[in-house]
Amino acid sequence: MKCRRCREPAIIDLRRHNAAFCKDCFWRHCHEQVKRAIHDFDMIERGERVLVAVSGGKDSLALWHILHELGYAAEGLYLGLGIGDYSDESGRFARDFATRFGLVLHEVDLPGDVGFDIPDGSRAARRAPCSACGLSKRHLFNQAATQLGFDVVATGHNLDDEAAVLFGNTLRWDAEYLGRQYPVLPAAEGFAKKVKPLVRLGEREMAAYCVTQRIDYILDECPMAVGNRHLHYKELLNRLEDSSPGAKAAFLFHFFDKAHQHFADAVVEERDALEACTVCGSPTPAGECAFCRLQARATRSDAIPVSIGRRPV
Amino acid sequence: MKCRRCREPAIIDLRRHNAAFCKDCFWRHCHEQVKRAIHDFDMIERGERVLVAVSGGKDSLALWHILHELGYAAEGLYLGLGIGDYSDESGRFARDFATRFGLVLHEVDLPGDVGFDIPDGSRAARRAPCSACGLSKRHLFNQAATQLGFDVVATGHNLDDEAAVLFGNTLRWDAEYLGRQYPVLPAAEGFAKKVKPLVRLGEREMAAYCVTQRIDYILDECPMAVGNRHLHYKELLNRLEDSSPGAKAAFLFHFFDKAHQHFADAVVEERDALEACTVCGSPTPAGECAFCRLQARATRSDAIPVSIGRRPV
Repeated sequence: MKCRRCREPAIIDLRRHNAAFCKDCFWRHCHEQVKRAIHDFDMIERGERVLVAVSGGKDSLALWHILHELGYAAEGLYLGLGIGDYSDESGRFARDFATRFGLVLHEVDLPGDVGFDIPDGSRAARRAPCSACGLSKRHLFNQAATQLGFDVVATGHNLDDEAAVLFGNTLRWDAEYLGRQYPVLPAAEGFAKKVKPLVRLGEREMAAYCVTQRIDYILDECPMAVGNRHLHYKELLNRLEDSSPGAKAAFLFHFFDKAHQHFADAVVEERDALEACTVCGSPTPAGECAFCRLQARATRSDAIPVSIGRRPV
Repeated sequence: MKCRRCREPAIIDLRRHNAAFCKDCFWRHCHEQVKRAIHDFDMIERGERVLVAVSGGKDSLALWHILHELGYAAEGLYLGLGIGDYSDESGRFARDFATRFGLVLHEVDLPGDVGFDIPDGSRAARRAPCSACGLSKRHLFNQAATQLGFDVVATGHNLDDEAAVLFGNTLRWDAEYLGRQYPVLPAAEGFAKKVKPLVRLGEREMAAYCVTQRIDYILDECPMAVGNRHLHYKELLNRLEDSSPGAKAAFLFHFFDKAHQHFADAVVEERDALEACTVCGSPTPAGECAFCRLQARATRSDAIPVSIGRRPV
């Protein structure tokens, strides 16, 4: 198996591209895919400050690495979710990465700073853990970005993640979620811009990127996500991809090209109608935002606005 | 396991309905699902003449049986596709059914009446067999219905078929196909109305219906369809259904309710712009219709318009 570009021995083959690459050309391939995603979807302007949502996993660390190498002013934010050893370990990987590359890592610790961890909080609020976790992450990353003056929040969602989410949303034809599913969500009153620069790269590519660039990352899946639907959807899409390489990328990118717009109008209207949360000031349809309500139930006290950025590394 | 309706011993359980039925209540369930589909989608008006597309398989024979029992004036049309023993045998099941219930079965024999069979024709025209077959069926059923004065063509596509087709169309976000996928396609200049009254019933239900009503049908799948994508999509959706009963029906019916309309406008415009085929007079975008071109290539001669209805049983 030879590298498509330089004919040296290849270290990885990518069936959907009908190509194999050596280490250096694979590095270039990953950089090019990220550049192309940023360009095609107008994700980041030169000079904009980027906050990378860092979990300590392969995707977010590879994303931060690539954005840094491409010359973007990218700092990280790590959320300590209070999920036992998993959180302790993932935090260490995030901090080690920041130290090694001399990058700024901000941190928010849910139990210490917000008053609840995901396992207890989701139980108290009677929400599925992945739902409470997703809500907390969206809220806290957005709040941190606006408070700390970042223009853009970049997350490590890769092609496999996005295809599986799209699959779930399509199974229910959930117009609101379909309207929101796009590699860039523009900034709006109270919202930083959100971008997904890894949308053209798959899970296997991100693992290979980290291994070849000697980036250490947490290997375990989150123990609370085991058995969730999202993983089941990934498995079904992998079976599809096995029999028709490229099917997953076609599903996702044809949606962006040919169908997303049909569902997007409702979302814009909805965003325009938001008010400030009476507790924390974040945009919300009315009254208290979903995160403050989660926090109030999880801490069984009045919700306390969270201030962020107190512990840069 | 007891029947949900009468508490007698059940013969079938339907996980997506969270119900089990005895033989009589299952018969009633199938009739009710067809009545509901006909009503919800305005499929057939009282007094309209219905042509049932009969293959000799479980779906089309069960459909014909149910429409007949519901009091519709339903005659059948069987197409002999020239696929060896499979066609010989399926034709026998269709004829035996018509004879047993005293119903009128029209027949068109592709090799004899149209000049090619599916295996040779698809090879000569360089089309996949399922593509050549689907095109021929759509054309000949529509032509027969308009020539013989039927208002409606009813096909035996069931919930599993439709969900698998929707899945394939969604994987490519094919707007034109998505716009056309609906349980009823209204009549238009040169087009009879097309309806799918089994859209609320699954494959397993149709097999059980035939077994319990002692309707003999061809058990084999078409030998030319083995290994096609459609069957692979069915298998993936079955895995999904196993882990979340009802997921398949939700996928299909939420599409009809919440998404189909977004894709439908293009189809209406396209239908309005059709002209008469220069050979057979069927509606087509321009010049010779796709079926006449297939026929010309398959028979390697000038296309001959087909006249239908010469051999009622």
